[in-house]
Amino acid sequence: MDQQEIFVQMGLGNWKLQLGRAEKAFNAFSDDDFNKTVAPGKNRIIYLYGHLAVVHDALKEILGLGKPSRPELAEPFLHKPDDPSAQYPSVAELKAYWAAVHTELNTLFATLTPAEWFHRHNAVSDEDFAKDPTRNKLNVLLNRAGHIAYHIGQVNLVKAG
Amino acid sequence: MDQQEIFVQMGLGNWKLQLGRAEKAFNAFSDDDFNKTVAPGKNRIIYLYGHLAVVHDALKEILGLGKPSRPELAEPFLHKPDDPSAQYPSVAELKAYWAAVHTELNTLFATLTPAEWFHRHNAVSDEDFAKDPTRNKLNVLLNRAGHIAYHIGQVNLVKAG
Repeated sequence: MDQQEIFVQMGLGNWKLQLGRAEKAFNAFSDDDFNKTVAPGKNRIIYLYGHLAVVHDALKEILGLGKPSRPELAEPFLHKPDDPSAQYPSVAELKAYWAAVHTELNTLFATLTPAEWFHRHNAVSDEDFAKDPTRNKLNVLLNRAGHIAYHIGQVNLVKAG
Repeated sequence: MDQQEIFVQMGLGNWKLQLGRAEKAFNAFSDDDFNKTVAPGKNRIIYLYGHLAVVHDALKEILGLGKPSRPELAEPFLHKPDDPSAQYPSVAELKAYWAAVHTELNTLFATLTPAEWFHRHNAVSDEDFAKDPTRNKLNVLLNRAGHIAYHIGQVNLVKAG
């Protein structure tokens, strides 16, 4: 492995580690558990599950690898706060969405060469990227891994079953 | 910046981002707030604050840069769960400890060259590192940044004041 490959493996490994922890946490819950809040008056598990899936679905766009598959889900799970009175997709539907998003990301990530991970991401201009080459695709992945960790800290406050 | 420097800046940037968020969250709390739990029956803010400081104090050792300055604090804040009946250091003492740990880390991090961040960390053997060169010092920092995010997700459930 050359240095660039090592660093890409570190970034991808970090993402997979946090994603694996998220999947373990969510998969331990019953469908009823998804209606539990992480703390009184705070987000429900179902909201955080949909939220992470939507944010990861949008990763394709920022990485220049495609478009979100379910852009309409950004409204309830990203632009709006959790709303127990709103109609959400079923847990089964969200699980299928989660699986599809992450399977597709895995496939797309495998198409990027180590060098391409260090190209600019789509939310930064050429000019700003020239000034700060850390604003690359791999850094987006590092940030999203931190975002998973942030919410899994909350999800893990809820006892399954 | 050469490629190695870019990686190191990404890793350090990630750490600083999460640490900055942690400091902002903790600094918004009054001393009384530190006795609040993040959710009913869960860790108090004071425990998570001491926990992060102790874990970061131990970073010096795993990075080969020194020894923890207050090893006796690992017992209450790392090896044992939160215990509201136990005697903890005051918030003022913990704030001084937090500041000392992170000031020292900043100084020590600045002594490492980009190449040294890719040397093995002290919790992995030479043999295992030869098999997996991602187990380097910079990867420890990425992991600790994720650890901060995990707990700050919890801390941010508490309203200050």
